[in-house]
Amino acid sequence: MDLREIPTPALVLSRPRLQQNLDFMAGRARDLGVSLRPHLKTAKCAQVAQLATAGQTGGITISTLAEARWFLAQGFTDMTLAVELPPGKVDAILDLTRQGAHMTVLVDSAEAAGALRQAAQADLPHPVRVLLEVDCGDARGGVSLDGAALAILGKLLCGTHNLELAGVLTHAGHSYACHSVDEIADVAEQERATAVQAAELLLRAGLPCPVVSVGSTPTATHARHLEGVTEMRPGVYMLGDLDQVGLQSMGMDRIACTVLATVIGHYPQRNTLLTDAGGLALSKDTSAQRHGRNVGYGRVCDLLGRELAGLYVHRVNQEHGHITADGMLPYKQLKIGSRVRVLPNHICMTAAAYENFHVVDEGTAVAEVWPRVNGW
Amino acid sequence: MDLREIPTPALVLSRPRLQQNLDFMAGRARDLGVSLRPHLKTAKCAQVAQLATAGQTGGITISTLAEARWFLAQGFTDMTLAVELPPGKVDAILDLTRQGAHMTVLVDSAEAAGALRQAAQADLPHPVRVLLEVDCGDARGGVSLDGAALAILGKLLCGTHNLELAGVLTHAGHSYACHSVDEIADVAEQERATAVQAAELLLRAGLPCPVVSVGSTPTATHARHLEGVTEMRPGVYMLGDLDQVGLQSMGMDRIACTVLATVIGHYPQRNTLLTDAGGLALSKDTSAQRHGRNVGYGRVCDLLGRELAGLYVHRVNQEHGHITADGMLPYKQLKIGSRVRVLPNHICMTAAAYENFHVVDEGTAVAEVWPRVNGW
Repeated sequence: MDLREIPTPALVLSRPRLQQNLDFMAGRARDLGVSLRPHLKTAKCAQVAQLATAGQTGGITISTLAEARWFLAQGFTDMTLAVELPPGKVDAILDLTRQGAHMTVLVDSAEAAGALRQAAQADLPHPVRVLLEVDCGDARGGVSLDGAALAILGKLLCGTHNLELAGVLTHAGHSYACHSVDEIADVAEQERATAVQAAELLLRAGLPCPVVSVGSTPTATHARHLEGVTEMRPGVYMLGDLDQVGLQSMGMDRIACTVLATVIGHYPQRNTLLTDAGGLALSKDTSAQRHGRNVGYGRVCDLLGRELAGLYVHRVNQEHGHITADGMLPYKQLKIGSRVRVLPNHICMTAAAYENFHVVDEGTAVAEVWPRVNGW
Repeated sequence: MDLREIPTPALVLSRPRLQQNLDFMAGRARDLGVSLRPHLKTAKCAQVAQLATAGQTGGITISTLAEARWFLAQGFTDMTLAVELPPGKVDAILDLTRQGAHMTVLVDSAEAAGALRQAAQADLPHPVRVLLEVDCGDARGGVSLDGAALAILGKLLCGTHNLELAGVLTHAGHSYACHSVDEIADVAEQERATAVQAAELLLRAGLPCPVVSVGSTPTATHARHLEGVTEMRPGVYMLGDLDQVGLQSMGMDRIACTVLATVIGHYPQRNTLLTDAGGLALSKDTSAQRHGRNVGYGRVCDLLGRELAGLYVHRVNQEHGHITADGMLPYKQLKIGSRVRVLPNHICMTAAAYENFHVVDEGTAVAEVWPRVNGW
């Protein structure tokens, strides 16, 4: 198989760049003195998880029950499901536990804690671990540290058959709104300080807190130190995207994942060419556009992954990607039927359209095909 | 199965509303005196295709080779692939033809026409039909009617073994930028007039043009007449979405497809609640926001599909949907663990995240599960 021949659109993964990204983040975790529990919500792939956990504890972070089932079937047993667990999903967690998974789940409400408490009366081979989510400024989930909510939740979950209060977790999603490395480092400090303060709160209330978990790719990359933290959970760093480049989490030469597309039309009268990678193949996410450069739905590389200066996808329809450039498009190089690779704007959204990665080492030969787990 | 119990997020399809939408468009086609070749790019589902083609010619429109293979396996043989066909996809079309499909493909360049001409030397049980795409103002694909391009392409494709020049096709995607029904009707007239003019051009050049094909849901809904046109190819009308409501293609009570989500967190301090339907479950498309109302990533209904006045998804993370409202959120009604149904912003993008539809008639019982074909 070769990138010149496989059906398009397709998702291409550069194994050397993936490895570079994994090495970088493993180095960060080592330097910061924390465990790395890589978040597989982006890659959703067992082969990537194997590489990402090499030399680590083996624990992973996930975002869906579909990932939990998939990774368990692939031999991963230590999983943190890092989305608030509603009562209706507790039974699935118990089933996974009975099948051998060591699940850690996330709670930030008395309702969810109560449902978990009640369900955990069942027979289980080992306890379900629970992390309390705290909000460090992202205003997504998590309890605020003002007030007594955290300690109350902690007590609700303690001393209960089959439940183990494992600690606290926070996520600095607001690092994505930063404009400089210094700002990101400040948000990373806010993330760290909130998590540590939450841990101290639990300890002062006489509750255990072995895990103090933080994580986002920007803050994991730029944190000045992580004193008091035990683990971090970045995920996007593995594959990378234009948004991470804009956030200075990586250089352009570390984006490991691209969308292979075929040129299907030339429209020189409006300096445009069309490819078969449209809104479904690239996603409608344009987050990276805020960093100022012409990014649109992705920037454009040749078949070997070398950027074609100035070319980007400025518009998408469902199955059409419109490419333009600051200057004149190189129509002779990009003949109808020829292929390009599009650097994704936001890879978590883009990758979700594909059932697998086409893995390349050097050149255009497809070395392996790695399946992914989408859906819920 | 019941909407109270199935795993979330899930895609719910109201069969009565679907049927209303199909009846409406069948009536439009009848009134306008054209064939209806429904576009299955949105529904991607054989059961929906069966209902949508009932009483029609049986021909369908599709957007990917994956759809072509899937619908052929389900017994649909007359298919128009309405995306420009690059040279690398010609072999797949020949394979489909050998398997019994009567394929119509789209061409707007000499390169693609040449590749098709060459490949069609092969033995085939019946010809591949070709439509020439013309641009009616959308600036997506298609040749311009200024100049001789259309007749040149037509001649390239004529008198060739196994190819049959079938006519012309255009798509008024720019109807989506309109602000009133009158404007849409004007664009529909532009679409019609362009297609008819293209057909006349071919006929004057001594070429055949049995098919004159137009189509988009807004123009199919609001066209004043379609004189000279033979078929229309709308697709989104089957399921509907908030964008179509904004374009006045339908009322809110005709949106047939919703995303079932579970409430996972309450955050009254910022008048927000979280559900488990985030960016992957809803898509990042916010097209409908331009119509002025607070739409965000979708508006919110109760479990029976009744709109909860003022509630909408104002922010998404990958697996988190943030719901807020103009007034105070009804937290008591929407307890943690309870379920809502989100009206999609743009259903083509939203539906693509799901492997199937959960079909409901009345109430919350799931009557059937209909599979969909995603990917390429």
